[in-house]
Formats: sequence, C-alpha cells, structure tokens
Amino acid sequence: MYPPAGERQVNDRFDELLRRLGEISDLEKAASLLSWDEETKMPPSGSAVRAEQRATLNRVAHDLQTEPGLGELLEELRPFEEAHEPDSFEAALVRVSRRDYEKAARVPSELRAELTRCGSLGYRAWLEAREAEDYAILPPLLRRGLELRREYVACFDPADDPYDVLLDDYEPGTKTAEVAEIFDQIKTALVPLIRAVSEAEPIDDACLHGAFDRRAQRRFSVVMLERWGADAASWRLDRTIHPFATSMSPFDIRLTTNFHEDSLHGVLSCMHEFGHGLYERQVDPRFARTPLAHGVSAAFHESQSRMWENLVGRSLATWRFFYPELQATFPQQFGSVPVETFHRALNKVQPSLRRVDADEVTYCLHIILRFELEREIFSGEVALKDLPDAFAAKMREYLGLEPPDVVHGVLQDVHWSDMSFGYFPTYALGNVVSVQLWERAEDDLGALDPMFKRGEFAPLREWLGEHVHRFGRVFTPKELLVRETGSPMDAGPYLAYLERKLGELFGAAAVSS
Amino acid sequence: MYPPAGERQVNDRFDELLRRLGEISDLEKAASLLSWDEETKMPPSGSAVRAEQRATLNRVAHDLQTEPGLGELLEELRPFEEAHEPDSFEAALVRVSRRDYEKAARVPSELRAELTRCGSLGYRAWLEAREAEDYAILPPLLRRGLELRREYVACFDPADDPYDVLLDDYEPGTKTAEVAEIFDQIKTALVPLIRAVSEAEPIDDACLHGAFDRRAQRRFSVVMLERWGADAASWRLDRTIHPFATSMSPFDIRLTTNFHEDSLHGVLSCMHEFGHGLYERQVDPRFARTPLAHGVSAAFHESQSRMWENLVGRSLATWRFFYPELQATFPQQFGSVPVETFHRALNKVQPSLRRVDADEVTYCLHIILRFELEREIFSGEVALKDLPDAFAAKMREYLGLEPPDVVHGVLQDVHWSDMSFGYFPTYALGNVVSVQLWERAEDDLGALDPMFKRGEFAPLREWLGEHVHRFGRVFTPKELLVRETGSPMDAGPYLAYLERKLGELFGAAAVSS
Repeated sequence: MYPPAGERQVNDRFDELLRRLGEISDLEKAASLLSWDEETKMPPSGSAVRAEQRATLNRVAHDLQTEPGLGELLEELRPFEEAHEPDSFEAALVRVSRRDYEKAARVPSELRAELTRCGSLGYRAWLEAREAEDYAILPPLLRRGLELRREYVACFDPADDPYDVLLDDYEPGTKTAEVAEIFDQIKTALVPLIRAVSEAEPIDDACLHGAFDRRAQRRFSVVMLERWGADAASWRLDRTIHPFATSMSPFDIRLTTNFHEDSLHGVLSCMHEFGHGLYERQVDPRFARTPLAHGVSAAFHESQSRMWENLVGRSLATWRFFYPELQATFPQQFGSVPVETFHRALNKVQPSLRRVDADEVTYCLHIILRFELEREIFSGEVALKDLPDAFAAKMREYLGLEPPDVVHGVLQDVHWSDMSFGYFPTYALGNVVSVQLWERAEDDLGALDPMFKRGEFAPLREWLGEHVHRFGRVFTPKELLVRETGSPMDAGPYLAYLERKLGELFGAAAVSS
Repeated sequence: MYPPAGERQVNDRFDELLRRLGEISDLEKAASLLSWDEETKMPPSGSAVRAEQRATLNRVAHDLQTEPGLGELLEELRPFEEAHEPDSFEAALVRVSRRDYEKAARVPSELRAELTRCGSLGYRAWLEAREAEDYAILPPLLRRGLELRREYVACFDPADDPYDVLLDDYEPGTKTAEVAEIFDQIKTALVPLIRAVSEAEPIDDACLHGAFDRRAQRRFSVVMLERWGADAASWRLDRTIHPFATSMSPFDIRLTTNFHEDSLHGVLSCMHEFGHGLYERQVDPRFARTPLAHGVSAAFHESQSRMWENLVGRSLATWRFFYPELQATFPQQFGSVPVETFHRALNKVQPSLRRVDADEVTYCLHIILRFELEREIFSGEVALKDLPDAFAAKMREYLGLEPPDVVHGVLQDVHWSDMSFGYFPTYALGNVVSVQLWERAEDDLGALDPMFKRGEFAPLREWLGEHVHRFGRVFTPKELLVRETGSPMDAGPYLAYLERKLGELFGAAAVSS
C-alpha cells in the first residue's frame, strides 16, 4: 500500500518545500499587512517602530529565502520536477522557486542591506529636495546608489546590456534592446500624433471640475467595483494618500484610493487598482502561500490595471451603463450633461507636466523619456549634475512643455532616489500588453462594448482569469504572452487603438498623417 | 578613547541581546496586527490563510525565543546585569529575558504545538457544543487538554500546588493558596451583601434600555476617550464582535468595541479597553521592542481596565462632567432623566446568569466559582461528566440562580475548552488591585471626584503612568504592588469600596450586617 520508498521520499521533500515556501510567504504577506496598515490605519506616532517591524519581517523572510538548505532541497527535487509536466503546479513550483533562489543567493546580504538602507535614505533626501525645491541635495546619494546598483549588476552573469539585469527584476527575461525598439516605435508614432492633437480644438472637460462629496464618490466606486466583481467577502477599499493594491492571499484583496473633493481622480484610481487586485484574486487558489501566487511581471500587472482603467473605464460603453448611477450620485454636476460629453471629458488629451496626471495618450512619452534618461544615467552618458537640464530638454522635445521648476521636472518621481532603476519602462509596456490581450479577448468573446453597455463585465473578467490570472507565475511573461496572444510584445495593436480613439474624439482628419 | 576590552565586549553582547529581542518583539507584534486585522478589517474569505500566517509568525517568534544561543547570551550577560542597578533598564531586561527564556525552554516544542492544536480544536468544539446545547461533546477534548496541561505542569519544578504553575503564566509569583485566601474573604463578605441587595427595592434602569444610534455612540465614546487622554496620534477605535485592546508598540494603541443598538454596553467596553490601552501606552518608551514593554501581569492589566470602567466610568462625578454630552447625543432617551437616575441605573446590582453581563458587585462571585471549579477539575475532585451540575450548584449557592440550560451554565466561557486554565482568577484579582492603587492615588492627589466633575482626568492618568505603567515588567507584580501601595494583595479596600457604594445606592441600612 505504500508508494515505493524513492517516490515517497521525494514527496516528503516536496512537502518540505511547500512548508518552507509557505513560511516565507506568510512572513512576506505579514510584511505587506504591516505596510497596508501603515498607509491606511496606523496612528501616526507608530511609524518609527513600524519601520523596524517591517525591516525585521523582510529580513527574516529573506534569510529563509536564501538559506542554503533551500537550495539543496531544490536540487534534490530536480528528478521530481522532471517527472511532472512542465505546466503542472509541482514542476512550476520547483522551477520558479529555484530561479528565485538562484537570483537571491547571488546577492550578498550586506549588499542587499546596503541597497535597502540607501533606498530609505534616498527616499528621505528626495522628500527634502522637493521641499527645498533643490535638486543639488540628491547627487551624492544618487552617486552612491548607482555604485551599489552596479555592484548588484556585477553579481549576475554578464548581460548584453547591464540595464538588462535591472529590468529582469521587474520584467523577467525581457531585454533592454527589445524595450528600446518598442519605445522607438511608440515615440515615432506618438510625437506627431500628440502635436496634431495639441493643434486641434481642445476638449472641454469643465464637467469634471466641481465639488464631489468624498463619501458619495466612495459609494459610487463601491457600486462599480462590485458590479465588476469585487465582492465584500474577499475585497476591501480603504483611503490612503497614494493609491495602491495589495493582497494578503488570493482570498483577501485590498484596494486603496484617495478621493479628492474637486475631481473624480479617486474613482479612476479605483478602476486602476481593481485591475491589479483582480489579477491576484484570480490566481489559482491552490497557489496560495507559494511564490506562484503572484502576477507574472510588472508589465503584465500594469496591463491589467490599465485595461480596467482605460480600455474598460474610459470607454463610452461602460459609461452608458454606469452614467445614470453617477448622475444620481452627483445630480447638480452631471444632471444635464450628456454621457457623450462626460466621456469626451474623461478622455481629454493634453500634454501635461506631471506623469501621474497624464492622459492615456501622452502617458507613454513620460515613461519613454525616463527610460532613456535612466539608461544614460546608468551608462554615465548623462552626468548627475546635468540631469535636471536633460530632463527638461526631453520634456520640451516629446511633450512641448517646459518644467517651471525641478519639482515639476526631475524631482517628480521617487524612482531614482529610492534606487528602483528599471521599473519605469514596465508602466508603458503594460499599455502595450493590455491591448494585445484585449484583442485576443474580443476574438474569443466577440465585441465587448455591447456587453459593457448591459453591465456585463463577467465575460472579460472570466476570460482574463482563464487566460492570464490563474497561471500566476507558472509561465515566464514572454511564454505567457505568446501562448495567449500568439505574438511577442508588439506595440502595433496599442498604437492602432490610440489612433482609433483619437479619431473618435477629434475626427479622423485631425490625427491622420 | 576606547572602553576597556572586557566592558566593550559586554556592551556588544547587550546590543546583540537588544537586536534579538527586537526581532522577537517585531514578529510578535506583527502577529498581533494579523489578529487585530482579522477581528476588525479582514474580508471573511481571508480566514484560512490568515490562520496559517498567524501560526507561522508565532512559531518563528517562539523558535527565536527558545534558541539556545539566546540562553547562552543571557548567561554571558550575568556580570553585566550585576554591574547595573536592579531597577535599571539594562539589569531588568537581562533578568526578565532570562526568566522568560528559562520558562520557554523548559517546554518541549512538540508539547507546545500540541497545546496550541488542542486549544484550537477545543475552541471549535466549544462553539459546536453551544450550538447544539450539548455539553457531552466536550469531555473527550477536555480530558486530553487536562492531560496536556498536567504534562505542562510537569515541565517545571514541583510547586506547592500544581495549579501554581498554571497561575504563574498569568500572575507570575502568585500562589494558589494566596488567591484562595483572598477569594474566601471576598466570598464571605459578598454572599450576604448580595442577598441583602436582592431583597431591597430593585434599581430602575429603564433609561438604559432604548434605541441608541451606533454612530452616535461612537462619537460620544471618542469624545470621552480623548478627554481621558486617547489622542488620535497614538490611538484607534474600531468595531469588532468581542471587544479587546491591543498594541503594536507604546505609540500605537488599538481599542475595539461593539456598539449595540439597544444598549450602551459598547460605551462601557470602551472605558474598560481604555484602561488596558493606557497601560501599554504609558510604558517607558525606551522599552519599545523589548519584553519589558508590557503590563506586568494579567491582574495588574485587569486592575487598569476595571479602574477606568468601574471606579472612574461608573462614578457620579465622572457623569456630572460627561452627562450633558450624553444627553445632547441622545436627547430623546436622556433629555429628561436626571444624572442621579442615570448613575443609579448604570450601577444596578442584580445577580445574573452570564459572567460577561454581571455588575461590579456580583462579578467576583462568577470568577470565584470558576476558580474553585477549575481547581477541582484539575485535581480530579470533580469528574468532567459532572461539571454542568457542579457549575449549576455553585450558581445556586453563590448567586441564588438556576441556569436554565448549559449555554447559560457551564458552556458560557471558552476558557476551559481552549485550555487557558489559570486565567479566570486574574479578573477578580484585578478588582482587588484596582482599589488598592486607587486609595494610594487619592493619598497622593487628594479626592479624585472633584477633579472628575471638572473633566480633569490627567492627574489620575499621570499618577498611574508614574507609579505603575512606566515600569512595564521591571518589577514582579508582587514587588510593584508592595512598592507602590505598601501592601501585598489585600481584598479589604475593595470590599470597603463595594460596601460604601452599595450604601450610597441602597441606603446604609440595607447593606449593614
């Protein structure tokens, strides 16, 4: 009745792997809760001790993650992995865990600690520099950060481009050269498109400026999120300063937003965060407490948030369903505004200085300029002292705007000060992937607009669960994209979508070249 | 310029101790946050994974707490400890940590795990037994629980009474015989007192029955708590089913309560939990992230909650200050009720079946009967099958009431099913200690009532901080009580207080013997 000794032993080893990975996941998710709580609930005087608590949990999790015993266990499990189908839970878990282990084990803990420390210092220096409107505070820390990041890169096998190593942390397997090619294609198409739009009659978005009661915004957002599939049994929505989504498990999804009295930005950020949350929610429940229970990459994650915010959330069909509810919520504001006017306002295209305020069309250029600059910083092509000017020059070139000061220029984002070089490009890649997936969903389901008009969002949600979410990290992002769309990353569908949309908003003549 | 090599090394070792204890504290506090979140915020479908997360954090914390390296470090620090004043942070930290380590190290991890497991099973069985109104479900689990608890007792040096070992987990250093003596004194005084009260004209508490909007109750409670000193920078108040207080650090205190539409119980439980929270809030801030940053014992903790709930919260002077606010909050209910009537209603004395509903006077008898029974269960004097009858018999004898069923009888509390034998007595000891401390505070500050009437609660709060809270666990509970009140635990002041109060409520004749 017993399985053969060899096999039984291997299963014991797999159980041991599950135990270890479960422990690591529990610590990481507890750290996530510490962060969520800090941003949403914690009384302010708790912050100093909270920072220590977070650091401890991350350190203990990281110690378990790099323990040589885990590496040995993963080696022992090679035959077990090979005895299972590559897509199976068992093989994928061993494979992905080994990849994670090997990456983590290459970085000495002292370097990792120093990176974390320098990231916190950089974050504080960035706040200080913004406060003082003085970029000069940053270069010494940025210099140290770049040194550390170069040491980090040196921990790995030589790549075609050192930036590949940074990118790999967010977008595993994607090369800098591939990103550069896609971005060149986007830039070539967008710069003239945006110039044309800037010359056209601007869209009137007066209806979006007014006084919007925060509680009413929340009530409306909850109605919308519940219609989309965020049920109270597994989701929460809380207030924070900077909106984010996090999860404690696939069964406990937390969105946060910031409702402002004078705009509907908070409602739109609910849509955005819903996309992130849905990804974590629809991962195969068997993956809970393992490293498979996450989105496969930053770009894939962002594709989901951008899909729900832009492709669903800014579409006329969606608002044909939700607009009466919004009108009932804000009758003074929208009672006599036709849905078409509201929809046009929501899709206003206008070059702006701040990335986080950018519209769907100009957004990518904000990213592309940052990607180009961070490569040049990293290669030394741009000296740190010249960064504010280099930033302003690209703003002029791509968006036709002149930053009035460093706060509206190079100090906009924390990403370089806190050492997260390599993250920026994934924002724009998310847009690209979102439309690739969307087209494939419409191939399978038929046109989505008629469904949205009827308030039917389950078909898209379920399609995404079936074709993307449930796999978690079983495939690499590149494998998953080819498997589900038949194509590698391709800006074509995204650019075609933008052109179509601008044509609808401004008339085909304004945007045809 | 360097300290001598020997001393320097010892300081390094103390830093190492701080590091290790900080790590343990961080894990324990993260586990507390997981629990707080589970009771107040977590979407319900998160519960299964949450249980795993809590178990992992507790296990990792416990592993660090019992690691032999910690024991060796504490041995190495003996000379360092002896070189410091016993009351100093340094000496106290080494001493208390060694005591904790030695206790924890005596219990094999398998036994501890089995106790935890059996406790969870017992909790579920208790819910089931209540649901089915059937005590017979419990004895097999209780039997196993008693076996494990006896094994636990056997891990320690033989005590005068095996129950001493259980008690020591909650009330370090206090002996069963001491508790029994205090309880006999209370019982002797209370049983006739309560009989006399039962024969007097009952207090009319009609004004406390009605419809109380929950949000209004919350608003009122927050006004009261802020006046008492719970500022928003360091405190929170959230909704839960079973009220509790917890803290993430001395700078982050969380109270929870349950406001009911038909009573003010939720307001009173805010007062109770405030006492617990204030204790943790006023511990010396230097103790944060160490085992000194906690109340010294369960009875001392309970003395604080009972003081704020009963001695402050049910006093006429307190309500002379707060009643206008309460009347403004519930004008229909209290607009035409004089404060004296409200105060009498709040202090209604009437034997009741449920411990958690008991008034200030009869409460101790609920505890004493449980203490007596758990000793008899533990010694085998009462067979498990006879427990419901034994419980009912004591209810008749002490409170003159007959439980109509087991849910209102032996199944009221979870404490035996979940294996927390030894906890019950601390509830009543808290009453005793609260009045001992109160008398000493009035010796120092003068009569408190005139201050309360003027809304001045800071003098009492600060006195408690100075004389009790700031010390955390530096002294043993017995040392602290003698140091601050000049006396060991003594029921005299508590009984005198009750007699005084009953005299005020019913007239001296009714309660004099």
